[in-house]
Order: sequence, then structure tokens, then C-alpha cells
Amino acid sequence: MGGHRVAVVGATGAVGQELLRILEERKFPIAELKVLASGRSAGKEVEFQGERVKVEEAQPESFRGVDLAFFSAGGSVSQELVPEAVKRGAVCIDNTSAFRMDPQTPLVVPEVNPEDLRWHQGVIANPNCSTIIMCVALWPLHRAAGLRRIVVSTYQAVSGAGARAIEALRTQSRAILDGREFTPEVLPYAKAPRHYQIAFNLIPQIDVFAEAGYTKEEWKMVHETQKIMHDPEIRVTATTVRVPVFRCHSESLNLETERKLTVAEAQRLLSEAPGVALMDDPAQMLYPMPADLSGRDEVFVGRVREDPTIPCGLNLWVVGDQIRKGAALNAIQIAELLDA
Amino acid sequence: MGGHRVAVVGATGAVGQELLRILEERKFPIAELKVLASGRSAGKEVEFQGERVKVEEAQPESFRGVDLAFFSAGGSVSQELVPEAVKRGAVCIDNTSAFRMDPQTPLVVPEVNPEDLRWHQGVIANPNCSTIIMCVALWPLHRAAGLRRIVVSTYQAVSGAGARAIEALRTQSRAILDGREFTPEVLPYAKAPRHYQIAFNLIPQIDVFAEAGYTKEEWKMVHETQKIMHDPEIRVTATTVRVPVFRCHSESLNLETERKLTVAEAQRLLSEAPGVALMDDPAQMLYPMPADLSGRDEVFVGRVREDPTIPCGLNLWVVGDQIRKGAALNAIQIAELLDA
Repeated sequence: MGGHRVAVVGATGAVGQELLRILEERKFPIAELKVLASGRSAGKEVEFQGERVKVEEAQPESFRGVDLAFFSAGGSVSQELVPEAVKRGAVCIDNTSAFRMDPQTPLVVPEVNPEDLRWHQGVIANPNCSTIIMCVALWPLHRAAGLRRIVVSTYQAVSGAGARAIEALRTQSRAILDGREFTPEVLPYAKAPRHYQIAFNLIPQIDVFAEAGYTKEEWKMVHETQKIMHDPEIRVTATTVRVPVFRCHSESLNLETERKLTVAEAQRLLSEAPGVALMDDPAQMLYPMPADLSGRDEVFVGRVREDPTIPCGLNLWVVGDQIRKGAALNAIQIAELLDA
Repeated sequence: MGGHRVAVVGATGAVGQELLRILEERKFPIAELKVLASGRSAGKEVEFQGERVKVEEAQPESFRGVDLAFFSAGGSVSQELVPEAVKRGAVCIDNTSAFRMDPQTPLVVPEVNPEDLRWHQGVIANPNCSTIIMCVALWPLHRAAGLRRIVVSTYQAVSGAGARAIEALRTQSRAILDGREFTPEVLPYAKAPRHYQIAFNLIPQIDVFAEAGYTKEEWKMVHETQKIMHDPEIRVTATTVRVPVFRCHSESLNLETERKLTVAEAQRLLSEAPGVALMDDPAQMLYPMPADLSGRDEVFVGRVREDPTIPCGLNLWVVGDQIRKGAALNAIQIAELLDA
């Protein structure tokens, strides 16, 4: 076969750009490519396989003849256009939160629950970036020892808030080093009533506030993890924090398992797990750091320690590229599995 | 009385400089001031009350006639010179880890255990910066509800590694923005066999590695907290991480208490506690952020949430100035209490 007729919606954003790069890298079979975006970006050009492709405005009719569509243009675009694309025969892999908790929509991390792809009805949801990274690292431990509780504190890169947030970190950092004033405009999220400095700062808010004082991002890590792992008994509590790092998310994880895991066992399980790279040697000062791991596909795990304050406790430090495994790569891995 | 004959050892470092500033600000009664440092810094000048004071090399004889000495020139200097200063009649407030776990030496956070000052024998230890900040925030909750377990992940500023680390964050950030190469030389700690970039990065190692894969910094948060709160039953597990922030430490705390605390109760206790400032209003996007709080004396607490994954759980986000309350201010508050 000559490959798919693919649409990439949100092609000019940070994730859309990475999607195009990874489709190229992995030689994903493409017969025809449409690059779509909001009206604002229509007319721009993007590069694909050495050619410049014009960005068209995403509209219902754009999906005529498309059999595979990647969405990463925000929740409201997906809400509106995913059903239109499905109606026209496209399978949609949606990177927004629009359909993630819909019981009719599988939420898939290929290393964890590929079998959920069997029951899709045209839409497959790509999980939240922090959740994907956490689930890849924890799945081998869950299978071996049964996760009962996760306490997670995140250290999330600005890439998670898009290309403008990456630029904001750059320009704010320079302004501070030069002693110039500036007006924050992007974080914690673009439409927020006020905005905060991220350069040389931490913002303990990602996405809007929701129930019980938790942010939506924090609730996503709870509910999406339970859905992906098919286990509503896994208790998760999260504190999510934006840090002045460009594109790798990091997470400090405290785990309670049903069965005791020694450090050696956990390290062995992690080193054998698909999609995971163990990077853990204190004697060599070896542990994952976000600046080193941009552009890498694996989720890196280090600082594996028994937590002696509970009978079956472990601490881990996890780092993964937010734009790749946290978003674009996971979506393309889903598409590859659909083809397999 | 005309005030104390004070020595400040390590006067040219980040903490020593802040000590001099706070002694001035708080009009600490000083009859005579000696500023001391390693031989390397001897001959430099520092400012105090508008005058330039020459830095002398710290030696045993330097403490003749001194009745109060602040030490922040590293553990080995304290090991050597604190006993000499005590022998010559000085009360020593030591900011290093040299005497913290010595059973003959009280380890004091004035808001928590001022009564321990009664039994000092010439040396009072100032706790680790992350520990002070955590203990100030948690003490009111411990008194009301009994802390059983603390899971802490830190976001620690470069100031904790001294003036050179502050400078390294600045120069590395500029180099990265300008696309220039550079060689990291300071972090995770000066004498480490290798050094890592901190600008736009995270380093999940503070101090050297010790037992069970934990760093010394992580063990300090365990053992010092138990000593300060006089409760070896408080279980603490820590993951400590250096972040590209100049001088406020932040901490994500997950707590388990004996008695259930509601969010409203915890907020009330925190808002009434000495040394604590509650800064917690999600509707107003109000929470502590390190870039805003440099130079402030209080420990700021926000993001107070019940943790529904355990019967008596709470999550908090805590920020405090590492050089002030985390070091210099706490030491001076100890000195003020000795006088009271």
C-alpha cells in the first residue's frame, strides 16, 4: 500500500512541529499529507521531507479523504473537529484532553495498554504528558508488585505550555540577566487573568484550578493513570509545578506497592521494560537530568531508593522529553500500532 | 550594656554577607565586630554599618575576647575552630553540619524548639536550610495533629551552594542564551569529581551520596527534623533537587497526621503561626513563588489541599528564602533569644 492520507492539525505548534519531524524520522508510511491549523496560522508554511507545505485552515471538509488525523490544536478545536473527521472516515489520535476521560475512547500508552486500541471507535486519546512519562516508568513496577499509592511532585518544562512559553523562558531569562523589565504574558496558561515570571522562578500551577484546590493537571495525573492502567484502586496524589527548563519533564515519585520490591529488583524491572532507560549509579553521579535528555525517546529513571518509612515504599526520579514521548512520539507509536 | 563582641566566620560568603546585613537591619547590639574568613579571603574588605571592615584570617587566637561567634565557612573550619572559640569563652552559632547531630549540641529553630537553648554548652547548631524551612511550616500542624509521615520533594535554589553557584547560574544562563559553550565547575558541589549544568536544568543531587542511595542533604531532612521536633517517630523521606532559581528554596510536602486536619483548620493554624505566612487562594491564583519572595523573613505556605488517598493526608507547597530564614536569619534569631 502507498501509505496513509494523513492530516496534522495544529501543525505550527510545538507538538505539531515535532509530529512532522518524527513522522519523517520513523519513515511513517504517508501517501498524502495535509497540514492544518487555526485560521490564524493558515497560509504559513512548514517543512516536511525537505519540502515546504502550505498550512490550511482546519475545517470539517479538510478531512475528506483523510484516513489518519493527529490533533494537537487545543481542546476546543478537537471537540469541534474530531467528530467531523471521524464522520469522514478518519481515525483520530487526539493529543488534547477533550476525549481522554470519555468511556467510549481508549486512552493509550503503547508500552502500557496497547490492547485498548482494539475497541476504538474512531478516536484514540493521547494522555497528558506528565501522565505518559509517569506511566511508562511505573508500569513494569505495577505489573510486578501492584501499585497502591503514588505521591508525585512534578518539575515540568515550559514546552508543555507550547511554543510561546518556550520563547517566554528565553526572553524573560535574557531580560533578567540584562536587568531589564518585562511583562509576563504566557504562564501559567495563556488565557489566565494574570501571568507570572517563569525565568529563575517556579510556578506551582499548571492548567486551571479545579475541585478541592487541585489543578486540572493534577487531576489528570490521578484519573488518566487509573484509566490507562485499568485500576481505579491505584491512589494518586499530585503537585504539579512549572520549572524554568525547556523541554523535559521531571517527576519525583514516592510509591507504595502491594508486594515489597527491593532496589535491585526495581532496577532490573526498569532496565528490561520497553521505553524505559535505567540511569542510576550514585557512585558515578549518574541520574537523569532534563537538559541532557531533550530529543530522546525513552523515559529515564534514576535515584531508585527504598523508602524506609513504609513497609513497601520506593522513591524514583523520572525524566522524559515532554514534546516527544510526552506527546508527539506517543501519538505516532499509537498510529504505528494501528497499522501493525 | 554596650553589646556583644561578635565574630563572623565566613564573612565573605553568601551566608556571611547576609549575616552582616541582618545584624545591621535588626540593630543587633554589637560592641565590637571581627570579620573572619579563610586565608584565601583575608585582606578583603566587607561593609558593615557604612564602614569598610578588613577581613582577617580565622585562627584560634582570633576568638580571644569574642563572646558570640557565627560560623558559616564550611564544616571543616567549624570542626577545627568552634572548639577553640568555645575554649576562649565565645558562644558559637554554627551554620554548618559539623555539630548538628552531636547529642551535646542543641539544634534550634526559634519558632519550634527555643527551649533547647537552655542546655547548650557553648555551641548551638543552625539546621540545614531545607530543614529549617520545612520545620517552620510543619510545626503548627505537628502540634495540632501529630505528624506521622512526611514525603518531601525539594526545589532548591543555587544560593544553597554558595556565592559561586549563584554566579554559575548567571553565567551559564547567558552562555546558553548566546549559544556559547561553557564548562560547569560548581554544582552539584565544588569538590565533586564531575560538575553539571544548572541553567535550564535540574540536578537531583545535593551534597554527596550516603547510605541507601540517599544524599546527605536527604538524610539531613530526616534526622534534623526528628531532633528539632524531639520526635523520632516522625518518618521523613526526601528527594532533594537543585533548580535554576537564585535564592528561595521551595518544597512539595505530602503529610500524614495522626488526627485529621481539614484544609480550613490547617490554613488557620498556619496563618496564626509565628514565622509563617499563609499565601493560599486558588481563586486569585495566589501561591508562593520563589522569585517573589527573596529577601523575605517568613516561610510562605500555599496550595494547602487534603490528600484523599489516605485518611489523614495533606499536601502543601512551601517557599522560604534560603539565605535568610534558611541560614543567616535563623542564626541571628538564635542569638537574640540567647540575649532575651
